[in-house]
Amino acid sequence: MSTATAPKPMPAPRNGVDTPTLLATINAVGAQPELARFQFRATNRWQQGTHSQSHIQAFSGAGGEQAHAQAFVLDADHPQVLVGRDQGPTPVEFLLHALASCLTAGIGNIAAARGVTLTEVESRVEGDIDLRGILGLSDQVRNGYQQVRVSFTLKGDAPPAVLEKIVEQSTKRSAVYDVLTHGIPVTVSVTAG
Amino acid sequence: MSTATAPKPMPAPRNGVDTPTLLATINAVGAQPELARFQFRATNRWQQGTHSQSHIQAFSGAGGEQAHAQAFVLDADHPQVLVGRDQGPTPVEFLLHALASCLTAGIGNIAAARGVTLTEVESRVEGDIDLRGILGLSDQVRNGYQQVRVSFTLKGDAPPAVLEKIVEQSTKRSAVYDVLTHGIPVTVSVTAG
Repeated sequence: MSTATAPKPMPAPRNGVDTPTLLATINAVGAQPELARFQFRATNRWQQGTHSQSHIQAFSGAGGEQAHAQAFVLDADHPQVLVGRDQGPTPVEFLLHALASCLTAGIGNIAAARGVTLTEVESRVEGDIDLRGILGLSDQVRNGYQQVRVSFTLKGDAPPAVLEKIVEQSTKRSAVYDVLTHGIPVTVSVTAG
Repeated sequence: MSTATAPKPMPAPRNGVDTPTLLATINAVGAQPELARFQFRATNRWQQGTHSQSHIQAFSGAGGEQAHAQAFVLDADHPQVLVGRDQGPTPVEFLLHALASCLTAGIGNIAAARGVTLTEVESRVEGDIDLRGILGLSDQVRNGYQQVRVSFTLKGDAPPAVLEKIVEQSTKRSAVYDVLTHGIPVTVSVTAG
């Protein structure tokens, strides 16, 4: 069994990851960095109240226009206790899903690259928020989460220390973790009338 | 027609927003700030490769445990060009949906509170990312988005300047906009073995 530090032969497909193709892709991007420039997109349409719906399909990257095999449709709303109609998760809950799924995708890939077979990856994500911010009741309270916690349970054919290192590496290379912890520039423009 | 600055009577339900209940909720939280403490949660389970699935239902707030009327199930994956199986949007696309839906929910509520009837709210969100970061090919490139842009189109029974002010106020009070632009503390823990 290989570990995070032992020398390894070319890893085989594992954990549902086509590891040879993944490593070939990384090498191709290394040789041609412009392939790494991606743009992801969503279009959103208001339904009523706090309910809106996004469509996600087209994106660009790897040197051209791309598309998911299908259009993904996502609803968001506020729950009844916040005077919505509960037609989807709240926008802030999607942040928790984005974080868990980004870290978990990285865990799958990194484990495969390190020759570790995983049997279980579960996580629970919690975000604490004081709604006095968004309700405009206090300028001392921020609008967003004050703290987010992710708790992983991992099982696989490697010692706990090796599994923990996989989570550590995934966190270190996670796009969503980076965005949530460091922030990004966001511009908002409006065409009205 | 009321505007953002004119004196207003108690606004009626509008835009699918139960405005009297919304304003009563804000007043109740103002009188009892502990009601504003919420915790949102997601549980995520790895499926295979880069595919994982989240369940979202329970949360706490308004002084107790709450739950959505149904469990919302969300899949995330990487597209085939990134060696995934395209079983859901990518984690970073969920960030775009979270942003658009948060700003749009605020627009619905704020317009109702200001007595403006909306007929259309659409947005397009784009995020630019250089994957050399997450692929570990460059330490000069960040993992997350370098820039996100949101473009709104609004129509309603108010002049363009009033509609623009509604988007401005929603941005100022958006939880997701705050998280994405300013970042939040995130802790990741692991139980492995």
